[in-house]
This record gives sequence, C-alpha cells and structure tokens, in this order.
Amino acid sequence: MRVEFKYMVGSLPKKLSVGVAGLGRIGRLHAEVFFSKVENACLVAVMDVIEDLAKGVASIYGVKAYTDYQKMLADDEVEAVVICTPTWLHKDMIIQAAEAGKHVFTEKPMTVTVKEADEVLSKVSKAGVKLQVGYMRRFDYAFSQAKKAIEEGSIGKPLVFIGLARDPSAPPGWAADPKKSGGIFLDMLSHDFDMARWLMGSEVKRVYVNGGAYLWDEIKEKGDLDVVNINFEFENGALGFIHGTRKNTFGYYLRTEVYGSEGTVFVGAAADPMYSIGTKDGMTYGGYQWFMKRFYDAYVEEDRHFAEVVLEDKEPLISGIDGKRAVEIAEACWKSVKEKKPVDVF
Amino acid sequence: MRVEFKYMVGSLPKKLSVGVAGLGRIGRLHAEVFFSKVENACLVAVMDVIEDLAKGVASIYGVKAYTDYQKMLADDEVEAVVICTPTWLHKDMIIQAAEAGKHVFTEKPMTVTVKEADEVLSKVSKAGVKLQVGYMRRFDYAFSQAKKAIEEGSIGKPLVFIGLARDPSAPPGWAADPKKSGGIFLDMLSHDFDMARWLMGSEVKRVYVNGGAYLWDEIKEKGDLDVVNINFEFENGALGFIHGTRKNTFGYYLRTEVYGSEGTVFVGAAADPMYSIGTKDGMTYGGYQWFMKRFYDAYVEEDRHFAEVVLEDKEPLISGIDGKRAVEIAEACWKSVKEKKPVDVF
Amino acid sequence: MRVEFKYMVGSLPKKLSVGVAGLGRIGRLHAEVFFSKVENACLVAVMDVIEDLAKGVASIYGVKAYTDYQKMLADDEVEAVVICTPTWLHKDMIIQAAEAGKHVFTEKPMTVTVKEADEVLSKVSKAGVKLQVGYMRRFDYAFSQAKKAIEEGSIGKPLVFIGLARDPSAPPGWAADPKKSGGIFLDMLSHDFDMARWLMGSEVKRVYVNGGAYLWDEIKEKGDLDVVNINFEFENGALGFIHGTRKNTFGYYLRTEVYGSEGTVFVGAAADPMYSIGTKDGMTYGGYQWFMKRFYDAYVEEDRHFAEVVLEDKEPLISGIDGKRAVEIAEACWKSVKEKKPVDVF
Amino acid sequence: MRVEFKYMVGSLPKKLSVGVAGLGRIGRLHAEVFFSKVENACLVAVMDVIEDLAKGVASIYGVKAYTDYQKMLADDEVEAVVICTPTWLHKDMIIQAAEAGKHVFTEKPMTVTVKEADEVLSKVSKAGVKLQVGYMRRFDYAFSQAKKAIEEGSIGKPLVFIGLARDPSAPPGWAADPKKSGGIFLDMLSHDFDMARWLMGSEVKRVYVNGGAYLWDEIKEKGDLDVVNINFEFENGALGFIHGTRKNTFGYYLRTEVYGSEGTVFVGAAADPMYSIGTKDGMTYGGYQWFMKRFYDAYVEEDRHFAEVVLEDKEPLISGIDGKRAVEIAEACWKSVKEKKPVDVF
Repeated sequence: MRVEFKYMVGSLPKKLSVGVAGLGRIGRLHAEVFFSKVENACLVAVMDVIEDLAKGVASIYGVKAYTDYQKMLADDEVEAVVICTPTWLHKDMIIQAAEAGKHVFTEKPMTVTVKEADEVLSKVSKAGVKLQVGYMRRFDYAFSQAKKAIEEGSIGKPLVFIGLARDPSAPPGWAADPKKSGGIFLDMLSHDFDMARWLMGSEVKRVYVNGGAYLWDEIKEKGDLDVVNINFEFENGALGFIHGTRKNTFGYYLRTEVYGSEGTVFVGAAADPMYSIGTKDGMTYGGYQWFMKRFYDAYVEEDRHFAEVVLEDKEPLISGIDGKRAVEIAEACWKSVKEKKPVDVF
Repeated sequence: MRVEFKYMVGSLPKKLSVGVAGLGRIGRLHAEVFFSKVENACLVAVMDVIEDLAKGVASIYGVKAYTDYQKMLADDEVEAVVICTPTWLHKDMIIQAAEAGKHVFTEKPMTVTVKEADEVLSKVSKAGVKLQVGYMRRFDYAFSQAKKAIEEGSIGKPLVFIGLARDPSAPPGWAADPKKSGGIFLDMLSHDFDMARWLMGSEVKRVYVNGGAYLWDEIKEKGDLDVVNINFEFENGALGFIHGTRKNTFGYYLRTEVYGSEGTVFVGAAADPMYSIGTKDGMTYGGYQWFMKRFYDAYVEEDRHFAEVVLEDKEPLISGIDGKRAVEIAEACWKSVKEKKPVDVF
Repeated sequence: MRVEFKYMVGSLPKKLSVGVAGLGRIGRLHAEVFFSKVENACLVAVMDVIEDLAKGVASIYGVKAYTDYQKMLADDEVEAVVICTPTWLHKDMIIQAAEAGKHVFTEKPMTVTVKEADEVLSKVSKAGVKLQVGYMRRFDYAFSQAKKAIEEGSIGKPLVFIGLARDPSAPPGWAADPKKSGGIFLDMLSHDFDMARWLMGSEVKRVYVNGGAYLWDEIKEKGDLDVVNINFEFENGALGFIHGTRKNTFGYYLRTEVYGSEGTVFVGAAADPMYSIGTKDGMTYGGYQWFMKRFYDAYVEEDRHFAEVVLEDKEPLISGIDGKRAVEIAEACWKSVKEKKPVDVF
Repeated sequence: MRVEFKYMVGSLPKKLSVGVAGLGRIGRLHAEVFFSKVENACLVAVMDVIEDLAKGVASIYGVKAYTDYQKMLADDEVEAVVICTPTWLHKDMIIQAAEAGKHVFTEKPMTVTVKEADEVLSKVSKAGVKLQVGYMRRFDYAFSQAKKAIEEGSIGKPLVFIGLARDPSAPPGWAADPKKSGGIFLDMLSHDFDMARWLMGSEVKRVYVNGGAYLWDEIKEKGDLDVVNINFEFENGALGFIHGTRKNTFGYYLRTEVYGSEGTVFVGAAADPMYSIGTKDGMTYGGYQWFMKRFYDAYVEEDRHFAEVVLEDKEPLISGIDGKRAVEIAEACWKSVKEKKPVDVF
C-alpha cells in the first residue's frame, strides 16, 4: 500500500506501458501490481496462449488481450514486456523482445542453462534494451534491512551466509520437470544463490552438494531432488550453506542469516506471530504466510524499480549478469551431485 | 492479494457501484481497495471538499470527482457510499445517504454521541438501506482465528478480555479535538470496545477508568487524555481491561488476549519478526507495522463483505447497533473519568 | 550456579548460621539453597512440627532437627531464622524470633492483616534485629534488568505498570483458606503489588477491583476469588493494572511491563522457548517453567542478600515496611470487592 | 531443583561415593552437583594438582583433598571418579582408574585421537567397570523432548540434522592448543556430533568441511580454526550440517533442528526471553545464557544417571563407543580440511 500516496492534477508524469506475457499465478500477480500499485507504469496488454485466460485477465483491467507473443511485441503501445512463462521459454522470449526493441523484465530464473544465459546477454547487449531479473527478495523490507546493516558495518566483516528454505510442497506442472525448470537448484534455490551473492558482496566460487529425492516419488522419477544441503565458498574466502526442501507441513518456511565478526543479521522465519493459542497442549502459533503474501510488497517494489530503470535509464538492481550467476551456481550444484565432490563454479 | 484469482469471460457477476466520500488516508485506502481488490464492487466516484484532492484521486482510477456530497448522492450510478470524513460529520452524512436511498458503509466511530447514534439508527431503519460500521479488525485473520477458537470452545468459557493498544503518536488535525472525534475512548479505543464485545459475546455493562494527559501538552489543552486504563465488566459476568496510550516509540503496538477456563488466545503484538540483528548490544527486532499495513487485508475483507451485504441482502457483521454500542461505552468512560467512579453503560 | 566460584584456604569468612522453620516446598527450597548455594551462610538447623519431615530433611544436610520452634530459638548456634510456615503463623513466629534476638527472614506475605503487620514492625524495631520479606522477584535477573533500565531512564518517565499473573491451579491446603492465607490478593498477587511499588518507585494509593470465583467451587465456598482485575493509581499519578487467575492450562504464566514516556520494558512470559515443533498443526512451543524453577536463581540471590544484610549490618532490599505495604494493598482490594467501588489504600 | 523432594528416615538407600579429578570450572560444577543435587551419590574426595585449589574446594564440601591422582585412586572410599582434566590427560586417567577398579565418568571429549579411544575401550572392557562420557545435552529437557518427538514419529522420518553453535569467544589456556584439545571439531563441536548421531539414530558416514581462522590470530597461530561449516551424510542416507564459530558478540548461541518428512523439531536458540525493552531503537531482547547456566539441569541429570548406572548395573546412555564416535568424526573433519575434499568417517 502506498503510505505516501500523493494526489496530483495537471500534467501527469511519464508512465511505462507494460505488457505481461504468461498469466499463471506470477503473471497475474505482476498484472495486478502494474495495474494497481505502480504509479509510474501502466498495464496495457496481457498475453497467454490460453485464450480464455488472456481474455479473462484483460477484461478485469480493461486492457488488450493477446494469445500470440509476436503480436504483443508488434504492439507499439507496449514499451516493455514482463515475462512470466515457464523457464524453458525465457531465452527465446527475452531475445525476441529485445530484438523488437522492448525492455524486458523476466521472472527468475533467467534461463535454464549457462549457454542460454550467454546467448541472452549477448543479444540484449546488442539490442541496447534494459533487462531486469525477478529476484524480488532484494526488494523485501527485511532483506533490505539486512543488506543495509551489513553495509553499515553493524555485523563487522560478513563471514558466513546461511539460508534455510522449505517450500510447502512439490512444484506442479512443468516446474516438476528439471529439464524445463532447472530443478530444485534453479527453480527454487536460485533465490537463495542471488541473496547469498548480494548480501555477502562476493561471488560463489565452489560448491559441494548432498541431497536426494526423499519425499516425493514423482520427483525421483523426473530426476530432480527434494532435499539438498549445499556447502559453498565465496571468492573472498567467506563460507556459505543453503538447505532446501520441497515439503513443509506447517507452511512456507524461509530463514536467512549472515554471521559476521561482530554480529549476525537474521531474516525470517516467515512466521506470522499475530495469532497464538495456549491450551493444555502448550502454546501454538499459527498462520505461516505463503510466499506471494510474504513478498507481496517486494513484488510491488520490484516492478516499480523496473519502471524507473527504463524511464530514468538506470541500471537495474538485478541485471542479466546476476541472472547468469544464479544459473552458473545451479549448474555447478548439479555437477557436484553427479560427481559427488566439490565443484568450481567458474 | 487474491491467491485464488479465477479468470472468467462472458457475463460478469453483478457488482456494487461505490462512491467514497472523504479522501484522507482512510478514504484513499478504501478507494484503492474497492478499485483494485474487491471483485464484487466497482469504484465509480470519489468526493472531497478539497477539489485538487478529489480530482487527483479520481484521475488515478478514472472515476468521477465530486466536491459536493449532495451531488454524489444524486448520482444514479452510485449505489452505496463509503463515508470516510471526520467523525463529527458522520451523522448527517449517513442520514442524507440513507434518505437518498444509498447503502452506507461508515468508518468508525459511527457518531460522536449516543444521541446521534440513535438518530442514525432510526433514520436508516426507516430508509431500509444497509449500514455497516468500519471496525475492520473483525475481518483480520488473527482476530478471526481468535473468534473461531473461542466459538469452538478451545479455551473453554471466556472469562477475561485484555486489550493493550498504543498508537505511535498523538492524532493530527480534527482528531485531536475530542468534541469532533470523541477523544481517546471513541476515536482510538472504540476498536477495542468492539473487539471486546465481539470476542466475548456479551455487552460491556459497567466501566471504571483511570487516566490522564501525561504525554502531550496539546492533548491536555484540548481536554483529551493520552494514557488510560479501563476496567470493565460484561453483562454475563466476565471481566475486561483495556489500556490505551497515544505514544509508542517503537511503533504501532496492539496486543489482545482472551483468557478462558481452559486456555488463552493471544493476538498481537503487531511485531514484524522478519528482521532481527544480534550484536554486542543484544538481539534487536525491527519493523513494527503501521496499522494501515497491519490491517490491509482486513480492510479488503471488510469492503468485500459490504459489497456482499448489499448484493446478497445479508446482515452486516458490524451493524448500526454495534456502532452505537461502541459510542455508549466511550460515553460511559468519559463519565467515569469525570465522576472518578465506576459507571453503568446502560 | 556460582559462575565466579573462587577457591580459598586459610581463614574462611564469617558465615551466618541459619535455621529454617516450616519444611513445605518453600522451606525445603530455602534449606537446600542455604546449604549448597549461599557461601556466606550455613544451614545449622531445620524445624517442622511433623517429626519425620524434620528428621528427614535434617539427615540430608547433616543438621539439627527440631519439632519445637521455641527450642530452635533457644539454640545459640542459630543466629537467624527463615520462616516458611503458613502465613497465619508468621506474626507470632517473627515476634518470638525477634524477642529471642534472632534475625528474621520471613516468606511472603509478612502477615495476614495490617494490624498484625504493625505489631510485627513495632516488636522487631524494639528488638533491633534484621527483618527481610521474601518477595524474591526483586532478585530475579529479568526484573532487576527492568528496574535498572527504568532507573537509567531508558523508558523515560514510567507511567503505567501492567502485571498479568496466572497460577497453574488453585492453592492446596491452608492456602485455600483466605482467613489463613489472605486469599488471592495477599497469597498470590502481593508479589505483583511489591513489584509494582518497586519498579514504579511510588506507593499504590487507590485500588478498584473486579473479580469473582469463576473456576473452582472450593474457592467460592471458602470465600476466596480465582479471577481478578485490579485497576490502581500510584501516589505520583502513574497508573497500574494487575490481573490474576488461579488456573492456567499451559503452566505458570507471568508477564509484567512498565510503559514509560519513551519506551516499555517487558518481563515474561515465563515461556521456555528452548523447544518447539512445527507440524501440520502449526508451530508449538513447550515447556513453561514452574515458579520454583523460574525463580530458583532469585531465591539464591535473596538468601545470599539476607546473609549479607545481617553480616554487614545493611538494610534489606525488602524491609518490614515493604512487607506491610503489600498487606495494606491486599486489604484495600478486599474492601473494594466488598464495597464494589474504588478504595484508598492509605 | 528437586521438585519432588521426598523426606525419609531410617535406612537410607545406597549412594555412590565419588571423587572428582580436575577442579577447573567443569570439575567444580560436578563437585557441586554431586554434593548438593544428586541424591544417590556422595562426594567424598576432590583432586587437583594445584594444592590450594584442591584444599579450597575440599573445605567447602568437607571432603578429602588430593593433589596426586594415584592416591585418590588408592582411596577405598572412592568408588567412581569423575575426570574433568584437560582432554589430553583423559586417556591415561581413564585407564588408570579402570585398572584400579573405579567406575569412570569422563568429561567430553573422551580422548584426543581415535587410537587413544581404542586403547581406552579395550582397557575399560577388560577392567569391567562402567564408563560414561559427558555429552550432557542428551540430558537436557529440550533436547530430550526433541528426541522423544522424533521417536514418537511426530516429524515422520528424520531427514536432515542442522546444528548452529557459536561460542562467545575463543577458548582459553590448553584448550586453545588443538594438539591438547582436538581443536574446534573435538573440543567444541563434538557435542553437536553426539547430538546428530543421537537424534538421527544413525552414524555419520562422510564429512566435508569448509572453514578457516577468520576471527582470532592466536587460533591461526596454533593451527586451529574458528569458523567452520560441516556438510555430512548419515549411514542411513539422511543429511547433516553443522556450523560452528568461536565468537558471538551477543552471547552463547546454540540452535539445533531436525527436519523430517512430516515436521521439524527446533531446539534453541539459548535466548532468555524473560527480559526485553522497546524504545525508539526497536525491541531488544537481553540475557543470553552461558552454557553452564543453560545446561545446569542437564549436568545434574547426567550425574544422577551416572550414579544409577553404577548402582543399578545399567548401560550408560553415552558409552565409550559414543565417546569414540565423536572423536572419529572430528578426525575425519580435520582430514577433510587438509585434503579439501569429502572424507569417509569409517
């Protein structure tokens, strides 16, 4: 919610005209956010290959509906596209948008492979458009505070990054196929890789992974993992650990900390402490928040930032290079799993 | 955020057409919520005596701007009004809307005095329109869970209501004048009176107040109080206590509990546990949420409920009678302060 | 545990020789503490009218057993007595000890009535011995920190004291008889009266009580109460509220806060956060601590302080006057219950 | 504290007569505990090479003082010894005690090397005496609850062990020398290895370590580490992670969790929630507990258990085999650090 909601008349400031491609839960979220929350942007079109979905969403916001991505790219009113399709479609869609002269916001992860990421970086660079990648946690209040505290020296020299992430359940649909989604490392934990790099201010250099498919038979069949422990080292000598699972019975669970020579910052654990009840069975807390609620404000800030990046010709906080780095780490994790030994990221 | 956001085409369901009167922070919040969050309603007009404000907000949502309340009432497209003006204007505006055949949602408190409340009830009843009062906490997830737990018998027989409420700072503008706002009991703590009645399922029968103007000179000068302790009894014999202050250095603070013969439910304390930092000074938690953020979802549910009440001809969860009860308790509190003794509410 | 446990040989420092009278749970606790924890004291005798109990406890510590209080008072080795008998026996036992020239530590409350308290003060004063009353919370780490924070000005001017106290269940034996124990106000909540006076640095001037016997039939039959809300004012104009109940299904529950013009200190809520479990039913915390464990260290410090008071001829932190003040407030509470109106304490 | 402290006369039960060797902080703690807390044991002697220390402690409890370990072993009254000397002395002292027919409780870790551990196991087995190792966390309320919850199936199949341990500062004296103490893995983190094995019910099979001496120059000079991340696998396929550091500015910090297929148990984080203060700087919690206070009750239960093991001829909860396992894991960690790769434990 815009606490500082200023009223104005007369000449309105320039707004970025945005089209959202892919209207799954995240696409609809971005459509809603651009429509109702981002003052410096305007939702002008939505696109999905499912016609009813495209028309349904378009009717809610009174915007144009497309089922053909190329046609949306050909729409002169669309200045920027927001790509929310399955991961394996990102590479081509980013490149096509860039070549059509549209600025691009792409949901995470940027691509499935490092090879694809390199192709994206090269084409986007040639096209000269903006590219921002959707690691929205960087825009979250709590993670921002942690970053600020680290930069102000409140915890001394940051020495260890620890991230624990547990999704409530296995991913549905295409995301269950590691060939399309990149599997647990890319689809889920690339958020944590991005956060590790950002908070620690250093690149992940070497990873070692233990893990398996312990929880869901479907995951095992598809060749993905559902419980992993990742030990890693940063280029500057600091240490890291990320633990991820695809099941958590009491809800979405996320906890991050950075230990430094003079203190520790903690973010998490996505608990809603608002409600509790004490009975003869003890004191129980309820109400863990699903990530779309937990990070709603972060999505708003992320989209607002994207509009600013384009309108004011700024560098995005999360660039294509950042997008590639996360893919690199995920690839190194898969290699470590296969070779059962530590693997260099670059 | 609508997690279950279903797409549809073809004939859309009936929507309630709403006009918002009074565009201070709460009026703008309701405008935003009706515009972007409530599927079964449509924002069609906004009104404020400040023309720039009315036009500025109207331009954001593409709706009609009024500076004259009567003209908005005369607009046939407006089926219901949402009254967000200063408290002392509520009585006349509710009655005028009702007499114009418009359904009414009024921000809390309903009126400044019990006499006004009685007039409102009589005229609204005669007009046959719906009237809902804006004690949005009843729509909050945590308070709803508490209510549910109590009704399911999880805490046995509810015996004591305890509410602690601390605003970050003194109210600005007209709200600082107890003649216009009803002072701390009505302007601030009527939320807690409503919650006490609702959670305990019984009326407040007798109150005893200690308090004073300890914190702000302006408050003393205007004849209001800034720190109060209210001891009270319910009609069914249960006990209650509400503590309120107009200053809290670390943010908006709200904690509520109901003690029962078999357990206790706790709601609060509006802490945001997402971010913390441990240094040599100890472990510090940051990020208390301002009420507009804390209760954003409750405002959405409240407005959605109002649309349903009108469209489906239901009784509102918070009726004009509820609105009057809160005013009665506040009046009894003022009487107890003046007479320095326990006072019967009715 | 004595973290700073220094070893020494040669001449040992003077130790206070102590006899404990009354070997219920609190008497045995003091015996254990004086025997094994307080370096500057020595347990030399224990006394109980139940011979087996006296001998059993004495055999554990290798000290003298008495069944006759007068005989223990006549024992020259006993320099000080620790009175842990039922409340209604305190007055005579304190006076007899004082007249026998023994220093006195008495468990709380000091006496059942103010009249008895005055008699105690007069006789003890005449005898010239030390008298300390057992409100051990003042020696607790958390409460001490709160006191220190208040005195250092961390919360500005203290304006409101709030205490919530819930015992797990109704008191057994003689304590169930308000004529012998003083009932809920004296037997249980005088701890909170003492804490209110101490933390706020002002006397309780006027009280107003709501309450009843809601939970236990035995309590109603004996004329005691089991749920009470006490609103009060301090001499310096500050406000207070104490809520007490005789049942808490999830264990001993104690929460105290002092709201000041610049902040709030919180003590409590006696939760043991060491263990928690998250399952599909939510996150549950376990392990509330019984008061004898919660305050074990406070009992040690209290007893150590008593030895110091005698050996170094100091004023006790909690004097006979403090003991009387708590009895006065409890009497005023009973009067308020009977007269159903606010009552002046003095 | 013994809440259920029963009095008895006549024939007392058999008690184990204990001598404590090594009177540093842990030795004095065991002396105090055996003297004043363990009903079924009797402190009869203490021993330290520092004569003043031995005599000082002996005088407090009225027991025999030895400066020569052999002489204490020759004392017929001593049935069991409690070894609290530096780690590098354990092996010989355990063996000498066993060969003198004394039962042995040894502080952790049992020995510095696996070779020493094997020698101990062989000699103790031949001597036929009891041997218990001091991983007291197994006797802690919270850890016991976690174990119980896991065994009752509350979290389904345990899949991942995570332990975070941060000491307030670098170890003093001999413990700073990894040749004498085994360094961070053995001296500090063997507690976590023992807990991992116990809670998961499986052996640690393979470890991979990242770490360094980041915090203290002395630690680097001596060849020890002060920040380590240990990734490991259990024999049954489950995963583990232990993070340890030798500095924590806000006190002793310990957090443990076991993630299972149906839930998670959490133990920690050694925070004392009893005291907090909210000011304009936010809400700060104070009072982290030093381990000797955090685990005081666990030490009592551990010593009580040892007395029972001997008196009732039971198997100790933590045997010599357990002692060896922790040393094995620590050795494998050192090997992984040197070889910079995953290492099999056995």
